[in-house]
Amino acid sequence: MNNHTVAAFDEDLDHIDRLLREMGELGATMVGGATDALLQIDRALSQRVISDDAIMDAKQRELDDRAITLIAKRQPMADDLRSVVGAIRMATDLERIGDLAKNISKRVEAIGQGLAPRPLSSSINTMASLVLAQISGVVSLYIARDANGLQALRADDQKVDVQYTSVFRELLTYMMEDPRNITPCTHLLFCAKNLERIGDHVTNIAENAYYVVTGAQLPAYRPKMDETVIAASS
Amino acid sequence: MNNHTVAAFDEDLDHIDRLLREMGELGATMVGGATDALLQIDRALSQRVISDDAIMDAKQRELDDRAITLIAKRQPMADDLRSVVGAIRMATDLERIGDLAKNISKRVEAIGQGLAPRPLSSSINTMASLVLAQISGVVSLYIARDANGLQALRADDQKVDVQYTSVFRELLTYMMEDPRNITPCTHLLFCAKNLERIGDHVTNIAENAYYVVTGAQLPAYRPKMDETVIAASS
Repeated sequence: MNNHTVAAFDEDLDHIDRLLREMGELGATMVGGATDALLQIDRALSQRVISDDAIMDAKQRELDDRAITLIAKRQPMADDLRSVVGAIRMATDLERIGDLAKNISKRVEAIGQGLAPRPLSSSINTMASLVLAQISGVVSLYIARDANGLQALRADDQKVDVQYTSVFRELLTYMMEDPRNITPCTHLLFCAKNLERIGDHVTNIAENAYYVVTGAQLPAYRPKMDETVIAASS
Repeated sequence: MNNHTVAAFDEDLDHIDRLLREMGELGATMVGGATDALLQIDRALSQRVISDDAIMDAKQRELDDRAITLIAKRQPMADDLRSVVGAIRMATDLERIGDLAKNISKRVEAIGQGLAPRPLSSSINTMASLVLAQISGVVSLYIARDANGLQALRADDQKVDVQYTSVFRELLTYMMEDPRNITPCTHLLFCAKNLERIGDHVTNIAENAYYVVTGAQLPAYRPKMDETVIAASS
């Protein structure tokens, strides 16, 4: 490539990086907003998260279009191609994080007036804080091209999983205590599961970001621990 | 492009189409297997679905690599670029269908000996049959480049959603009847939700397939109906 082409290419890449950062920030805002809306039964806030999802989708489409056009027009090789493909993949996970935050928000109405009991609310809040720290962290580490940080962050998803399993057990207990808790707790169960899945998407983002930064795959990872192993007899 | 390049390009596209068809067939096998394993508590079958997921992931990686290489090397324009990008997107949804079937299978062990009550089992089975027909249908219609068929198929996802909402209500009823049903029914709830999400992925595939076949987007669609609107007070 000549200097002119290189400059244009770098500009395209910068634009894609900027979109990724914006999607990361929006994702964090949506997850934080969805959790607050859920725990405080705040309908105005849940509506805002739902409408933010359209912005997230539009940003992903823009990133996708730009990335594909860039690949087709400029035929990037090796490292550059890896960056563009990595960005497409990270954007896919960020868009799903938006979907999951929206799904949490959609349940606020269904749960209605019934605030979650304080200990449960506090457990869900702890889980959401862990997830939020993961989202904000992964975007910053990618922007800083910090490979070691990304590897460490991926390992932190375990904390989310442990907290989720604990929330899952708590929810079962509330349901068993009083059948009137079953419907609201079912919605909270899906919300907690959504937060756990958001953590998984952050893990995917960390793996793709690591690959973009280093050109190598992160070493294979521990088997996933979640509520699928909690037996009906326990 | 000269004739030689055109022939090589067509060969690449055919290979990508073949991978898509294989992923579609594997997806249908996995969803069928996961449902049978769940309803008959068949551990050997659930293990097979879990190991099939690695094959699905490998096929998606192969398709992705081929598609990206094709874009970078051959710089396809308009229609051809649309086909390749469409294939990447369809493969992403098929891979997620595999993940969801695997997740259903992982719950077979947790549910243990307790077969679901017959009416519930029959409702879940109806839902799974609808979803299976959708997966098999979308792949055939894409291969046949049948735009009208794809549009009709997308509308059929409503049947899946209606059946899911009914399964959701049934599960709540069983949980309310007897607290011992709560843990197994929670796993069944996630399984039913996974089937509903598989239906959503088929909808995405139909939309992408339609776009590849016609170059136009399907008209905007009805708002999604699911259990998020079932109020805690109902």
